[in-house]
Parts: sequence; C-alpha cells; structure tokens
Amino acid sequence: MLPLPSPFMSLAMAEAEAAAARGEVPVGAVLVEAATGKVIAAAGNEVEASGDATAHAEMLVLRRAAAVRDGARLAGCDLYVTLEPCPMCAAAIALARLRRVYFAAYDPKGGGVEHGPRIFDQKGCNHRPEIYGGIGEARGASLLRDFFRGKRDEKMPKF
Amino acid sequence: MLPLPSPFMSLAMAEAEAAAARGEVPVGAVLVEAATGKVIAAAGNEVEASGDATAHAEMLVLRRAAAVRDGARLAGCDLYVTLEPCPMCAAAIALARLRRVYFAAYDPKGGGVEHGPRIFDQKGCNHRPEIYGGIGEARGASLLRDFFRGKRDEKMPKF
Repeated sequence: MLPLPSPFMSLAMAEAEAAAARGEVPVGAVLVEAATGKVIAAAGNEVEASGDATAHAEMLVLRRAAAVRDGARLAGCDLYVTLEPCPMCAAAIALARLRRVYFAAYDPKGGGVEHGPRIFDQKGCNHRPEIYGGIGEARGASLLRDFFRGKRDEKMPKF
Repeated sequence: MLPLPSPFMSLAMAEAEAAAARGEVPVGAVLVEAATGKVIAAAGNEVEASGDATAHAEMLVLRRAAAVRDGARLAGCDLYVTLEPCPMCAAAIALARLRRVYFAAYDPKGGGVEHGPRIFDQKGCNHRPEIYGGIGEARGASLLRDFFRGKRDEKMPKF
C-alpha cells in the first residue's frame, strides 16, 4: 500500500473501499472545513444502492454538508476525492464554491476537470477552485482497476 | 399568458411559479414516463430552502424519480424544464439516460446544452437525449425576468 500525502485522502480511499465492498464503483469523497480541519461529510458512491445515477460520492458530500451548514455555499471547504470528478460533479463543485479540490486518479474518459469539458476552464463557469490532481493517484486508480477486473472475472466461465 | 404547447411544460411552469413564491430562482421541472404519459416527479428549485447549491429542479426530479423506480436509469423518461439545464444538470441527464429534454428559455450565460460546455456534444458524453429548446420560451424567460426585476427593486431605496 502506497503512503498517502493526506489523512483526508486516506479517508476518501477508505470510503472508496467500502463502496467497492457494497458492489459500487469505488470512488470516495470527503469534505473538510479548511480552517479547522473538521470533516463535514464523507461518502462513497451510492449509485447502485440508491438506484440514482447522480449519487456520486462528490454529490453526496455536497448535499450532506449543505444539510448541516448554513447557506447554500461551502466556500471555506476543500474536497478530497479518489477520482477526477465527472462534469456533473465538477459543475456542482463550482456551484458550491469550494476552495480546493484534491483528487487522486485522473479519468481521461469520464473526467470533467482536466479532461472532456474542463468545466472550471469554461468562460461561463462562476467559480474555479484550486485543483490538485494526482494526490495518491496510484491507489485511487488501482482500486478502480481491481474492481473492474473483478467484474470482468465474474462474467468469465468458471472451471 | 402565452399558450403552452404541452401540459407537462405547463406543469413545469407552475412549479417554477411556486418556486418564485418561495423566494427561489423560478425554475421548474417535470419528469414523465414517455410510454404512458405518467408524471414520475415534479419539482421547483430548492436551493434556498435546502441550503444546497445542487438542489436545482432537474436534479430533484432525477433523484425523486430514482427513489420510486427500479434501476439507476430513467431511459424511457422525458424531462420538461423551464430553463436550459446548466452543465451539472445536463451531465446528470446524460448519466440518467433520459430519452428527451424539452426546455423553455435559453440560458446563454449559465446553460450547458446549447451554450458553454455543450455537455451532450462532448466526445466523452455517454448519452445524448433528443433536445427540444424554446418550448414555451417566452413564459419561461419572463418568469425569470420578473423574479430578478423584483429582487433588484427590493434593493432600491424606497420613497
């Protein structure tokens, strides 16, 4: 197991692992109040359990954080997530005006930060957080790789 | 009041009006099962009430529909919404694999369908619904115009 540069990313990885154990695509996210280091919300992907295609880990922490804080914005908060956010989550992060986003694995196919629509670089984007990609990348990526390898194996005939 | 081409868009407009009456940005959305014409979910914007920046009308109907239907996808459903979806909502619509999106007013500043990142035209976008923009456009736009005019007036000194 590779060392992780932040206990918050480590917590996000634990959420991703717990998601995998539930049969969810292993992505985990943690929202932290930057000034105090307090964890406001932590979640793994819940798409399968909820039957809700929008129940990505990032959306869940934003919603749950909003439920425990005043105001629609989480401007003083940082997000730690094990995979580059997709366009939906990136746009939600802009709406919530997060301060920083730390993500682990890059997602050339489905990412919306450094790939695809590059949401924060759009002229109409109302807010651009500071972005730190590749934090604990190898572990974030290997969680996903192992999960999808397992899925493929399930479909293989057993001898 | 202009006639509307669809009772579902009319219902979406009523949701937008109800949102305005609650002090929310007036956007309403309705999700309909295409084969039966059954309304699966209807909602107006709840950003202010919930303190959740992601509580756009479209996200709410997707989440509420998922709660009452099997499976993470709503492939046989059509969305009626009074404003061009933002990038977050457009990406959520792609994830949910909706069949069609009918929207009223175009949103050159914040829209993500015909403007900005044009989410459904992105190479990495997994699903592109049929899009029908400008359905009841004048009324969708006037709801928003009246709302923001009222907001500006509130800030004006009173004599």
